[in-house]
Amino acid sequence: MRYVRFLHDGNKYLGTREGNKIRILGEESIESLLAAGTDLETYAGTHGGGKLVDEADVAYLPVVEHPAKIFCIGLNYADHTKESKYEQPAYPTIFPRYDTSLVGHGQPIVRPRVSDSLDFEGELAVILKRGGRHIRKEDALDCIAGYALFNDGSVREYQFLSPQWTVGKNFDATGAFGPELVTASEVPPAARGLRLETRLNGEVVQSASTDDMIFDIPTLISVISEAITLEPSDVIVTGTPAGIGWARTPKLLMRAGDVCEISVTGFATLRNPIADEA
Amino acid sequence: MRYVRFLHDGNKYLGTREGNKIRILGEESIESLLAAGTDLETYAGTHGGGKLVDEADVAYLPVVEHPAKIFCIGLNYADHTKESKYEQPAYPTIFPRYDTSLVGHGQPIVRPRVSDSLDFEGELAVILKRGGRHIRKEDALDCIAGYALFNDGSVREYQFLSPQWTVGKNFDATGAFGPELVTASEVPPAARGLRLETRLNGEVVQSASTDDMIFDIPTLISVISEAITLEPSDVIVTGTPAGIGWARTPKLLMRAGDVCEISVTGFATLRNPIADEA
Repeated sequence: MRYVRFLHDGNKYLGTREGNKIRILGEESIESLLAAGTDLETYAGTHGGGKLVDEADVAYLPVVEHPAKIFCIGLNYADHTKESKYEQPAYPTIFPRYDTSLVGHGQPIVRPRVSDSLDFEGELAVILKRGGRHIRKEDALDCIAGYALFNDGSVREYQFLSPQWTVGKNFDATGAFGPELVTASEVPPAARGLRLETRLNGEVVQSASTDDMIFDIPTLISVISEAITLEPSDVIVTGTPAGIGWARTPKLLMRAGDVCEISVTGFATLRNPIADEA
Repeated sequence: MRYVRFLHDGNKYLGTREGNKIRILGEESIESLLAAGTDLETYAGTHGGGKLVDEADVAYLPVVEHPAKIFCIGLNYADHTKESKYEQPAYPTIFPRYDTSLVGHGQPIVRPRVSDSLDFEGELAVILKRGGRHIRKEDALDCIAGYALFNDGSVREYQFLSPQWTVGKNFDATGAFGPELVTASEVPPAARGLRLETRLNGEVVQSASTDDMIFDIPTLISVISEAITLEPSDVIVTGTPAGIGWARTPKLLMRAGDVCEISVTGFATLRNPIADEA
């Protein structure tokens, strides 16, 4: 199943896409369904009687608006580590996103007033349905509700003003998350063998296979849970491959009016225009 | 006013301490009161009719269990930056805490199975009642609900396994937060001029003035809000001074059976035993 969250007539809804229309399933959020232990593989099938609305009449929300936690993985593709001038660590590099930084599909990724160094990072995100501590790698796939696409929009100047990247990764409306949560049954196990591509104004700027992740998804779940209790609706954003704008000569930065797209084999494209902060 | 949150007879309560007893005010959490815009300066005065229970019969909870966001400030005291072998950045160093890492006053700070490098960091935390974006320094004090003490327990090996400190700062039950939220009216403006002290098994291991912060509290609120929308119940943990165990020769690490205390002028002591992960 594939789920979207959106605003329509001033209310927030859960739905499924049918062509260029959206079937309303209800007002539940994905995080509340996951917290209640709802099976997303079957939920839409038993809640499908709702109104059909035009996609043109909705504004997409981040597919999970308020995850319990968001873990972003840095330096998880060797060619990106190299272009970023880091030594490859033998342990996952983890930084946070706060939910105030998220935006939905189709909504503007916002270039802030204080910097023009806004960069793209195409990534695949994993959404958990089950958590725990000391999860074994061989049990990790049982924790996954599904997957979605993520644009880890980064304000590079701020990312490097101190040793910790947190602020550069958390400007309001820089983390695009959607368009759909695709449940695990529709994706190869651990999302292996998928092509991840980022396009800026139609031009391919990043292209890699999810097989190129240094720490694969079961490893990430297992390793994080050695330290931290994982919870339903936790999100792990699994890292970006080479091609970021900041590592190019000259630098390629995102400007108001640009359009950035992320696609992964089998997923609907995540597409966001860029706008300046008001 | 001074508020505590605690477990008693299987329920979670809000209360105020009266000697070695606690007056139950209700079941509200501080974060829900702040989200609703409740004035904590007057709330206890109008909700004081509840039962009095013995402190011995309660287990303290993190004073704010589920803050909207937690920002921890690193490298905010020059002598600590120096002992940590960092160059002092001209911008605040910000890393996250997830709420799964919090523990209440009196509860064990847990040394994990995977490492014995558990260290203390005494700090003062600020809890916001009002948020926003682009908050001016001169308006920052109007955003503060109150203050509490924080022990930013750090698993040093994991802190330095990658360029980002996130995991070393987020092991379950390593961030002690309490015992009380002391409302802003009972603390000097911006918590200036207070003595912050950490004691391990009674011995003073850290001692500094809050005046030694490189980025003071109004600056932190203003600077973070240039990037990130602040919200009611956001917490800023303002950094630790010199004296950490990891920078000593030989290293001083916390072991099961140790007791770590944090005190700040005018605040009740935050006291936690250390225990090994089960």
